[in-house]
Amino acid sequence: MVDDGHKPDHGYDYDLVVIGGGSGGMAAAKEAAALGARVACLDFVKPSPAGTTWGLGGTCVNVGCIPKKLFHAGSLLNEAILQDSPAFGVQIASEMHANEVSTKVQWPVLRENIQNYIRSLNFKYRVRLREKDVTYLNKLGTFKNAHTIEAVDKKGRSSTITSSRFLIATGGRPTPLSCPGGDLAISSDDIFFMEQSPGKTLCVGASYISLECAGFLAGIGLDVTVAVRSILLRGFDRECSDRVGKYMEDHSKVKFRRGVVPSKLQKQENGQIEVTFSDGSTDSYDTVLAAVGRTADTEKLGISSLGIKVNSKNQRILGKYEQTDCPNVYAVGDVLDDTPELTPVAIQAGIKLARRLFGGSKEPMDYVNVCTTVFTPIEYSCVGISEDDAISKYGEDNVEVYHSEFLPLEWSLSNARSHSSAFAKIVCEKAEPQRVLGIHYVGPNAGEVMQGYGVSMRQGLTYKQLTETVGIHPTCSEEIVTLSITKSSGEDAAAGGC
Amino acid sequence: MVDDGHKPDHGYDYDLVVIGGGSGGMAAAKEAAALGARVACLDFVKPSPAGTTWGLGGTCVNVGCIPKKLFHAGSLLNEAILQDSPAFGVQIASEMHANEVSTKVQWPVLRENIQNYIRSLNFKYRVRLREKDVTYLNKLGTFKNAHTIEAVDKKGRSSTITSSRFLIATGGRPTPLSCPGGDLAISSDDIFFMEQSPGKTLCVGASYISLECAGFLAGIGLDVTVAVRSILLRGFDRECSDRVGKYMEDHSKVKFRRGVVPSKLQKQENGQIEVTFSDGSTDSYDTVLAAVGRTADTEKLGISSLGIKVNSKNQRILGKYEQTDCPNVYAVGDVLDDTPELTPVAIQAGIKLARRLFGGSKEPMDYVNVCTTVFTPIEYSCVGISEDDAISKYGEDNVEVYHSEFLPLEWSLSNARSHSSAFAKIVCEKAEPQRVLGIHYVGPNAGEVMQGYGVSMRQGLTYKQLTETVGIHPTCSEEIVTLSITKSSGEDAAAGGC
Ligand SMILES: Cc1cc2nc3c(=O)[nH]c(=O)nc-3n(C[C@H](O)[C@H](O)[C@H](O)COP(=O)(O)OP(=O)(O)OC[C@H]3O[C@@H](n4cnc5c(N)ncnc54)[C@H](O)[C@@H]3O)c2cc1C
Ligand SMILES: Cc1cc2nc3c(=O)[nH]c(=O)nc-3n(C[C@H](O)[C@H](O)[C@H](O)COP(=O)(O)OP(=O)(O)OC[C@H]3O[C@@H](n4cnc5c(N)ncnc54)[C@H](O)[C@@H]3O)c2cc1C
Ligand SMILES: NC(=O)c1ccc[n+]([C@@H]2O[C@H](COP(=O)([O-])OP(=O)(O)OC[C@H]3O[C@@H](n4cnc5c(N)ncnc54)[C@H](OP(=O)(O)O)[C@@H]3O)[C@@H](O)[C@H]2O)c1
Ligand SMILES: NC(=O)c1ccc[n+]([C@@H]2O[C@H](COP(=O)([O-])OP(=O)(O)OC[C@H]3O[C@@H](n4cnc5c(N)ncnc54)[C@H](OP(=O)(O)O)[C@@H]3O)[C@@H](O)[C@H]2O)c1
Repeated sequence: MVDDGHKPDHGYDYDLVVIGGGSGGMAAAKEAAALGARVACLDFVKPSPAGTTWGLGGTCVNVGCIPKKLFHAGSLLNEAILQDSPAFGVQIASEMHANEVSTKVQWPVLRENIQNYIRSLNFKYRVRLREKDVTYLNKLGTFKNAHTIEAVDKKGRSSTITSSRFLIATGGRPTPLSCPGGDLAISSDDIFFMEQSPGKTLCVGASYISLECAGFLAGIGLDVTVAVRSILLRGFDRECSDRVGKYMEDHSKVKFRRGVVPSKLQKQENGQIEVTFSDGSTDSYDTVLAAVGRTADTEKLGISSLGIKVNSKNQRILGKYEQTDCPNVYAVGDVLDDTPELTPVAIQAGIKLARRLFGGSKEPMDYVNVCTTVFTPIEYSCVGISEDDAISKYGEDNVEVYHSEFLPLEWSLSNARSHSSAFAKIVCEKAEPQRVLGIHYVGPNAGEVMQGYGVSMRQGLTYKQLTETVGIHPTCSEEIVTLSITKSSGEDAAAGGC
Repeated sequence: MVDDGHKPDHGYDYDLVVIGGGSGGMAAAKEAAALGARVACLDFVKPSPAGTTWGLGGTCVNVGCIPKKLFHAGSLLNEAILQDSPAFGVQIASEMHANEVSTKVQWPVLRENIQNYIRSLNFKYRVRLREKDVTYLNKLGTFKNAHTIEAVDKKGRSSTITSSRFLIATGGRPTPLSCPGGDLAISSDDIFFMEQSPGKTLCVGASYISLECAGFLAGIGLDVTVAVRSILLRGFDRECSDRVGKYMEDHSKVKFRRGVVPSKLQKQENGQIEVTFSDGSTDSYDTVLAAVGRTADTEKLGISSLGIKVNSKNQRILGKYEQTDCPNVYAVGDVLDDTPELTPVAIQAGIKLARRLFGGSKEPMDYVNVCTTVFTPIEYSCVGISEDDAISKYGEDNVEVYHSEFLPLEWSLSNARSHSSAFAKIVCEKAEPQRVLGIHYVGPNAGEVMQGYGVSMRQGLTYKQLTETVGIHPTCSEEIVTLSITKSSGEDAAAGGC
C-alpha cells in the first residue's frame, strides 16, 4: 500500500466515505466502522432509461443475483411440476383424472412476492448499516476534489462532505443497445419489475445475464429467442458452454439465432416490437431485453479531475490492490477493472481493503480461483481455468482432461428428462502430481456442488487428492471425485458410472 | 499385507472369488479382473422374512440408496408443489380457480417407476461384469475350506468352486424386531416393494434408515410416527441431529414418540397392527417398519471353521486392512466391522484391495474424514467429527465452533417455509492455525454441498483457508465459507448474513 496521507487527526468529516451502497460498498463500510473508523455510505439509484428505480443494496439484491435466482427457482419448480410429477406419481388436485399436467405461472404474483422480499432486504440493510454505526446517505456523490464530494438528494438538495479517504463502489449499469430504436429494448434493470409477463421475448447477448434471463423466462412458459452475436458464454469452457446452449435449445425450447445482432427495432401498432436482424430477417416480440454487457457507473463521478484513469471500453477504474491513481481514493467491485463482476468478490475485496486501511492488515484480495455459477436451466459452475485456456497456456500435450457424462439420479424416472445429461470435467497438468487447473460441472445445483471444490483448489489440489476422497452416494457431486476416464483415451465420457 | 500364499500357478479355478455382488464386491471383482486376475463373483439374495427378493447389485441399488433417494426426491417434489408453487405463482391446470393446491402421490406409480429403473440397473450391472470379464454366478456361497466354497443356485443345485483368494462382501441385512409379534413388522428390505401405500406407519428406530423412511413417507402425505428409544442419529453431531428432528416434527408433521420401544405387535381384524409400547400406551398402524440396525450376513457363511472371527454384537468380520484372520480371505463393505456402512466406502475399499492384491499397490483404504449425508426432509451432511466428539477429545477450551442459521433464498418467498431454517457449523481447534475438525450442514442439497469440502478436509483444512475462499452467490454453500460468528461469543447464530 502506498502512503495515502491518512492521519488520525485529519479534520475531515469522515475517515472514510463510501460512494455506492452495493455489495462491495456496504461490506467495506461496515468493516471499516467495526474497526473504529468514522464512515458514511452514499447510495443513490439513478432511474434506468425505462424509468425503473429501487432501494438500498445495489445491483445484487435489487436487479441482480437475488431476483434472478428467485425467478430461476420459480422456473425450476414449474419445470419439475411439468416434467417430474407424472414420473413420481404426484397427482395434483382435480387434475387427478386428466392425463397431462399443465401450469400457468402468474407473473404478477411471482413478481410481487419477489419484490416484497427485496423490500424486506432493503430495510434490513438500512438497519444493519445503522447498527454498525455507518451513516447512510441516500444521495448521489460527485467528486469536487480529492477530499470533498458534493452529495445531492432526491429533491436536488446539495451538500458537501469531506473525508480523509474515499472508496468508489458505484458498480455498473447495463450497456444500452445502440442500433436504431435501441431505446425500445429494456435491460435487466427493468425485467424484474414488469407489471405483466414480458410475453414473447428476444434476449440480445449471449453471456450470463442474457442466458439466465432467457432460461427463466422459458422455464415459466414463455416463447424466448436469444440473439447470439458470436459464441455463448465467452471466457468459459467451450464444451461446457455448448452443453448449456444445447440443453436450453433441446430441453427448454429456447430458440437461438446465431451470428446475428439486431440492426433496427420498431414499435408496431399492436404494441409489439419488430426487430430487424443483421441478416435482414425480421420478427416481432412483446419484449426485447438487451444484455450486451455492463458499463461502469463512473462517467459523472468527477474522477478525471483527480487523475483517476478508466478503461475506455467499459469505463471501469484502473488500479491494483483496489488503489486508484489518486492516493486516498480506492475502488472495489464491478467498478474496478479486470476483476470478476461478482457479489462475493466485491464483498471480500471490500472487507479486505477496510482491514488494510483501518486494521493494520497487509493481506491483499486474491482474485485467483474464484468460483462462478451460471444459473441457466441447466446450471454451470466452475473454478480455475477452462480446457481451452489450459491448452493454450500449457500446450495440448501437457494437459489431461478427465470427464464424465451422466444422468442425475433425480432425472432417471422421467421420460422428459431422459434425453438430457449432466457433465463433469477436470482439467489437470499431465505431469505428476497432476495439479488440477480447473473443475467444471454442468448439472443441477451447480453452485452448491462447486463451492467446496473452490476451497480445495485454493489448497493446491491434485488429481490424486481429489479422487482419493470417498464419494457421497447418491449425489451428482460424487461424479467429480470419481472421474477416471481421460479425454485422451478416446473412451466415451458416458462410459463411467457404477 | 501378510503373505497369503498366492502364486501365479496356484491351480485353483480362480485367482479371486468374490462372495457378494453388492457395491464392494462388484467393484473389487471388476478391478481385479481389469488387472488380469481370473475372477468370479457370486451374488444370491435370500428372501426377506416377508418374502421379498431382488436382482444383482446388492443393498444400495435394490433396497438402499437408490430407491431411498428416489422416494426422497418424490417427496421433496410433492412438498415443493404444495409449499412453494403458490408463492412462486405457479398455478396448476384446472386448479387455477381453487385457493389451495392439493396433491395425491400415487404409491403404485412411484413404486413401479422406481422398480423399473432398478431393473434397468440390475441388467446394466450384469452387462458390466461380463464386459469386464468377471464370471457372474447367481449362487449362494458357503466356505468348505480356505480354498473351496460350495455354490448353490436357485434350484438347489450345488457345485464346488476353488480359488486362490476369496473376498467376502456379503453386506448386512436388517435386524428383526425381537418383541412378541415382531414378525408383523417389515424392514427396509420390503418397504420399497409394497404394492400399495403403507398407509399410517410406525418407524421403529432413530437412525439413518428409520428417519429417512419416516421422512419420505411423511413427504408423500402419510401419517408417520417414529419410535425413538433414546436419541436421534447416534454418533452424529447432537445439535444438528436435533435440528433434523425438529424440522421433521414441525415441518413434515412426523410424530416422535420418545423414550419408548414397541413391546408387542398384534394383528387386528381390520388388518391394522396394534402396537403396545414400553410405556403401556397403544396405537394402531397399517404398517410397522423396523429399522433397528443391521446385522452382517455371515452366519451361514461357514467362516468360523476358517478361524475368522466376528463381532458378536453384529456378526461383522474383524480385521485390519480388509484382511480376515484367514490369510487368503479378505472382507470389504458392510460385512467388515468398524467401518462406515456406506456404498462409496465399500467401493473404494474394494478397488484399493484389488489393486494391492493384483496390482502391486501398497495403498491402504483410508476410512478417515469420510463424508456422509442423511437424506431426511431437511438433509444433513457432515465430514469430520461432531462438536460433542471434538470437545471430549480436545477439551472445551481448545475447540472453537463457528455457526450460522439462515433461510435458504429458495425458501424466502413461501410462508410455509419461513419458520424453518438451514444451519451450518464448523468445529475447529482453537489454537492457530485453527485446523478444521468437522463441517456440518443441515439444509437443502446437503450431499451436493458437502462433497467438495470432503476433498478440502483431506488436504488438512484450516479456518483461514476456508474463509479466504470467495463465495458463490446466491447459494447455501457460501454460508460455510463465510462463517464468522463463534459459539463462544454467545452471539446469535442467526445474526450473520449479508
Ligand atoms: C442480472 C444480474 C444477475 C447477476 N447475478 C449474479 C449472481 O448470481 N452472482 C453474483 O455473484 N453476481 C451476480 N451479478 C453481479 C453482481 O450483482 C455484481 O457483481 C455486484 O452487485 C457488484 O457489487 P458492487 O458493490 O460493485 O456494485 P453494485 O451492487 O452495482 O452497487 C453500486 C451502487 O452504487 C450506487 N451508485 C452509483 N453511482 C453512485 C453515486 N455517484 N453516488 C451514490 N451512489 C451511487 C448504485 O445505484 C448502486 O446502488 C449479477 C448482475 C446482474 C446485473
Ligand atoms: C435403506 C438403506 C438406505 C441406504 N442409503 C445409503 C445412502 O444413501 N448412501 C450410502 O452410501 N449408503 C447407503 N446405505 C448403505 C449401503 O447400501 C451399503 O453400505 C452398501 O450397499 C454396502 O455394500 P456391500 O458391498 O458391503 O454389501 P451389499 O450391497 O449389501 O451386497 C452384499 C450382497 O451379497 C449377497 N450375499 C450375501 N450373502 C451371500 C452369499 N453367501 N453368497 C452370495 N451372495 C451373498 C447379498 O444378497 C447382496 O446382494 C443404505 C442402506 C440401506 C439399507
Ligand atoms: N451468475 C452470475 O454470477 C452472474 C450473472 C449475471 C451477471 N454476472 C456478472 O455480470 C457481468 C456482465 O454480464 P453480461 O452478460 O451483461 O455481459 P458480458 O459478460 O460482458 O457479455 C456481453 C454479451 O453481449 C454480447 N454483445 C455485446 N455487444 C453486443 C451487441 N452490440 N449486439 C449483440 N450482442 C452483443 C457479447 O457477445 P460477444 O461474445 O460476441 O462479445 C456477450 O455475449 C458478467 O461478466 C458477470 O461477471 C454474474
Ligand atoms: N444416507 C446414508 O448414507 C445411509 C442411509 C441408511 C443407512 N446407512 C447405513 O446403514 C447403517 C445402518 O443403519 P440403521 O439406521 O439401520 O442402524 P443403526 O445406525 O445401527 O441404528 C439403529 C437404530 O435403531 C435403534 N434401536 C436399536 N435397537 C432397537 C430396539 N430394539 N428398539 C427400538 N429401537 C432400537 C437405535 O437406537 P439407540 O440409539 O438407542 O441404540 C438406533 O436409533 C448405518 O450405520 C449407515 O451407515 C446409510
